[in-house]
Amino acid sequence: MKKVAIGIDIGGTNTVIGVVDREGNVLVKDSIATPSHGNVSLFVDEMTGAIRELLNSVKKLNPEIEILGIGIGAPNANYYTGNIEHAPNLSFKGVIPLVKLLETNFPELKAIAITNDANAAAIGEMIYGGAKGMKNFVVYTLGTGVGSGIVVNGDLVYGSDGFAGECGHTTIVSGGRLCGCGGYGHLEAYCSAPGMKRTAFELITKYNAVNSPLASKSFNDLDSKMIFDAAEGGDRVAQEVFELTGNWLGLGLANTIHHLSPEAIFLFGGPTAAGNYIFRPTIDSMEQHLLPIFKNKVKVLPSQLKAGDAAIVGASALVYKELEKQLN
Amino acid sequence: MKKVAIGIDIGGTNTVIGVVDREGNVLVKDSIATPSHGNVSLFVDEMTGAIRELLNSVKKLNPEIEILGIGIGAPNANYYTGNIEHAPNLSFKGVIPLVKLLETNFPELKAIAITNDANAAAIGEMIYGGAKGMKNFVVYTLGTGVGSGIVVNGDLVYGSDGFAGECGHTTIVSGGRLCGCGGYGHLEAYCSAPGMKRTAFELITKYNAVNSPLASKSFNDLDSKMIFDAAEGGDRVAQEVFELTGNWLGLGLANTIHHLSPEAIFLFGGPTAAGNYIFRPTIDSMEQHLLPIFKNKVKVLPSQLKAGDAAIVGASALVYKELEKQLN
Repeated sequence: MKKVAIGIDIGGTNTVIGVVDREGNVLVKDSIATPSHGNVSLFVDEMTGAIRELLNSVKKLNPEIEILGIGIGAPNANYYTGNIEHAPNLSFKGVIPLVKLLETNFPELKAIAITNDANAAAIGEMIYGGAKGMKNFVVYTLGTGVGSGIVVNGDLVYGSDGFAGECGHTTIVSGGRLCGCGGYGHLEAYCSAPGMKRTAFELITKYNAVNSPLASKSFNDLDSKMIFDAAEGGDRVAQEVFELTGNWLGLGLANTIHHLSPEAIFLFGGPTAAGNYIFRPTIDSMEQHLLPIFKNKVKVLPSQLKAGDAAIVGASALVYKELEKQLN
Repeated sequence: MKKVAIGIDIGGTNTVIGVVDREGNVLVKDSIATPSHGNVSLFVDEMTGAIRELLNSVKKLNPEIEILGIGIGAPNANYYTGNIEHAPNLSFKGVIPLVKLLETNFPELKAIAITNDANAAAIGEMIYGGAKGMKNFVVYTLGTGVGSGIVVNGDLVYGSDGFAGECGHTTIVSGGRLCGCGGYGHLEAYCSAPGMKRTAFELITKYNAVNSPLASKSFNDLDSKMIFDAAEGGDRVAQEVFELTGNWLGLGLANTIHHLSPEAIFLFGGPTAAGNYIFRPTIDSMEQHLLPIFKNKVKVLPSQLKAGDAAIVGASALVYKELEKQLN
């Protein structure tokens, strides 16, 4: 009998739902709008309907299929409580007991769990990806923000309140750039995609780089893909953006290693598509910032989750982790 | 029947051995010289003799006493292997299989384990001190260096290689002061006792503070106790040393919280005797550097281990943690 898990990725605009097999392949998926006016019960009803439809279509393909549970990735999701709590980028106000609501609608499922998207990425890496068999590793997700998921002794670290793994908000430049959270000098303000854009504008200004292709874009138009293309085309400003981003990220990774001594750190998200433009300076800087006992030991690897489906695949992996815990 | 554990603290000059009861009281203790010429077998023989003598004296007091095991705190000690590995401040060269050697001499004991002194302090805090019942907390030890021990889900974090918890070597000032390890800008270079002295000298220089009592001491003579006394006496330079030290330490603690979301962080060691001179600016800075979800949540507490015996008491606590693991 083939076993599958449902993965749900709740974003600010859309919520994507997929049925994922044990190898991390998405068999079918669907998308509904995330409400913009905070109507939770309507949202849960729509989600429930979409899940039922996906399950029916999967069962038509293979009547032997067993559905193990639902894993959800969402901003400000608290694994311990099963709630989404005061998410600034979602329209829901206050505390939404999403796991409880779905448990009522799907009493037949053995495991329903929620966590934030970076934690889901870490569990996805462990169940389906490059961290299979690893007991101590960390995932950094680079995108609009910088998130992280930490695994110690084979388990995700949730901390005392469910919110551990916010490495994007560690301070790497004391008194540095304003971060989206209101803090200063955070890793996210330097190593996210918007952080790279800010670095590009600093360098254009510093060098008065009128000949850089990046100089013809407005602050609001420039994105990290354009920086990558310019670097590939030989633009020195764009290449230096990657150097500096790697320097900052490597410092952050070294701080994480001095806390946790992981076997590997996985990098996930848009900016990692730049390959060695970002990996080489990151690893150089990380090694430079490490104590001798940690040097040349910790692997920095690209995530093995496929970019397009990673969010729902990662979320679905929560189900296997839950079932494993129930066995212990 | 009263149960006791043996705690051993291996320092550069002396090795202290104590018999510790379940409440963390040292019943008897003794001290032998740590060899300065790297003779390991002689050292283990002396240690074994001293342990046997202590046990005999304890059994004379109470013949009913049961000895559970031996816990050792030592620099560069690796919990996983039971070895002391390339410790720069000990005369032993290479890898010393200390746990194996003691197991041969004490086959009757159920648990013999080793870790570094900061990890031992964390386990001591959990078994005997202020962290009883806590599942997620961190201990920072401030002294000649800055060490740390991290507890997640009730277990000490050793990481992939046994060396996790080196928060003293996280970078808090990019490109900042030279650290004893050869790195730059590490927390230890600012928040250790020698780091506070360096801050004092920076401030004396900055303000040309000829009237500060600290200005009459040489760099090699000034210590953190003198800075505390000067602060108590109203010296503005000394008071600012504590402000700045707290600012840096608070930044480091915030970085730790963004990784692990602990319930509490305990501060241990000489500089913490300054009480609110160090705790207030540390907590202020930590709160200022935290994401809103973590603000006003994480306690910063003085260690509850008695200063004089803390090293052997902490080491002895390893025994209870080992026995607990053997039960699972």
